[in-house]
Amino acid sequence: MGCSPDDAALAADVLVSADLRGVDSHGVARLPGYARLHELGRLNVKPTLRILHETPSTAVLDGDAGLGLVVAPKAMEIALEKAANVGSGWVAVQNSNHFGIAGYHALRAVEQGCIGWVMTHAGPLVTPTFSKERLLGTNPICVAIPAGEEPPFVADFATTTAAYGKLENLQRKNMPAPTGWVQDANGQPSTDANAVSKGGSLLPLGGDREHGSHKGYGLGAVVDILSGVLSGANYGPWVPPFATAGFMQAGEGVGRGTGHFIGAMRVDAFRPADEFKRHMDTWIRRFRAAEAIEGETVRVPGDPERETEARLRVEGIPLLPPVIDGLKAVGEKWGVAF
Amino acid sequence: MGCSPDDAALAADVLVSADLRGVDSHGVARLPGYARLHELGRLNVKPTLRILHETPSTAVLDGDAGLGLVVAPKAMEIALEKAANVGSGWVAVQNSNHFGIAGYHALRAVEQGCIGWVMTHAGPLVTPTFSKERLLGTNPICVAIPAGEEPPFVADFATTTAAYGKLENLQRKNMPAPTGWVQDANGQPSTDANAVSKGGSLLPLGGDREHGSHKGYGLGAVVDILSGVLSGANYGPWVPPFATAGFMQAGEGVGRGTGHFIGAMRVDAFRPADEFKRHMDTWIRRFRAAEAIEGETVRVPGDPERETEARLRVEGIPLLPPVIDGLKAVGEKWGVAF
Repeated sequence: MGCSPDDAALAADVLVSADLRGVDSHGVARLPGYARLHELGRLNVKPTLRILHETPSTAVLDGDAGLGLVVAPKAMEIALEKAANVGSGWVAVQNSNHFGIAGYHALRAVEQGCIGWVMTHAGPLVTPTFSKERLLGTNPICVAIPAGEEPPFVADFATTTAAYGKLENLQRKNMPAPTGWVQDANGQPSTDANAVSKGGSLLPLGGDREHGSHKGYGLGAVVDILSGVLSGANYGPWVPPFATAGFMQAGEGVGRGTGHFIGAMRVDAFRPADEFKRHMDTWIRRFRAAEAIEGETVRVPGDPERETEARLRVEGIPLLPPVIDGLKAVGEKWGVAF
Repeated sequence: MGCSPDDAALAADVLVSADLRGVDSHGVARLPGYARLHELGRLNVKPTLRILHETPSTAVLDGDAGLGLVVAPKAMEIALEKAANVGSGWVAVQNSNHFGIAGYHALRAVEQGCIGWVMTHAGPLVTPTFSKERLLGTNPICVAIPAGEEPPFVADFATTTAAYGKLENLQRKNMPAPTGWVQDANGQPSTDANAVSKGGSLLPLGGDREHGSHKGYGLGAVVDILSGVLSGANYGPWVPPFATAGFMQAGEGVGRGTGHFIGAMRVDAFRPADEFKRHMDTWIRRFRAAEAIEGETVRVPGDPERETEARLRVEGIPLLPPVIDGLKAVGEKWGVAF
């Protein structure tokens, strides 16, 4: 589409990394979506990324409507430079697009001996507690933390009870959704896996008030405010959807494009790195050794994705037929052989 | 007990502020617990707070076994100084004790035009997903964000489905707990409000795997690692309980005392403060105006506590008879008239 070869390679790396980690909802299956962004005129394939404002530990980055897959790594690079200089770096990004999986970007910080923080908001599919109006996205948070001999700790999750991809799996199998995942258009509890497309919504982590949905709502709101209000992007119901035509027209929003919030803290800005890493190994081993419920295994955040990656690096990445069809269609349009 | 008058006044202010906000589990009802900490020899009433290591945007603070109620405000003061200098400040605290409500400390940042971040870990009552071993505390997170004409946004919550105080309410009324709050000693789902005292545990936000408990577990783990591993305090199962004799003996733990993680980011380190505040007002008003489910009201994080405070400032703070008895007993011991 005119991206530089470096940008194209980086974007491909982010997508394939999601597939490898088993997060196939954010992998190459999204390529047709990014292509649609381009068709809609929402994607600048040759963005000029600019710092709009900065202090020694903070910055706001203008993504210039570039691919989030390319903008987020740049934001993390700036955060890492600041962390190298003053201990930590925090970059709010405006005018970007969907950035793929948060974990990819956070792990770049870990490679540099930093704790990586990555958040982004998304188009509104989620209702605040007690509401029937969709005002928040699935708004993921990732915190990745380096260890010593153990692989890094990676908590990477949407702030909803379940990710939309899991509902799509149930839709394909004609199965109901568990309680607490969705509500219907009137705000009543529902187990219809198709509730969202009928005007219902995803629920914040917790599901309902009795089970702490106000906490999931609060967390999703923090992600929205840091990604949107702090950066000068849109926020709440004005956040553009991933790649549909029904997006906000220019001038209709309250800010510029989609936003992210990306940070890095050097562990040796707190205590010697070898000490920190030794204790992280102890933490990880102690939790992995926790007495398990009969028939189950206790894992540390990041373990399941890493186990999947180890397996898929041997077996290859399975692609569903509709994903292959989507890739073929994009390839035909742009003259790339499958 | 020998605290300086300033420290005693500050500690009292933190406790009363919790009662005013309706978080009575963290208010003056805790005074006998802090007195017990002193009896147990775990409390240094004249601590010398020292920065052990720092960079322009980070620090590790040694709380010298002081009251967390006094140590946490000092940590926030350091974070705010760093934010004034370089945009943000992040302080990991070791060798502290229970610090009361997170919201109090985070709101100090808001007074200075900053976003306040406050986390702390606590003694182990919570099981990781798929485990029957208690390895985490209720590990609260607070993020407080300034607005313009609207009062601040304050998300302040334990990373469990329900706080322990809510279970105690049900115990007093002989009522069962909702599903997803606790499990029994074998790791099976339970609705016994007394499950925790019978060897069971509190569950991470989400309740079970199907409802996203791995997310609550991941979040509680991040709080534990930032508060404990990054600071040089204890972590996981080694975090000392609030104020019981069954605490870890000196030398048995993996670090020093209880830890906190406290941060401040200046909003004008990202964009002009008036712009930010205007958009925060828009955010808050839009969410408060969300279409509500029949018979409900949609609130913004911080609203319920503020509504309670407004009411209690008029009506006074109600104290339960056992709380009054506890205060009297402490007063008698220390020669303070009720």
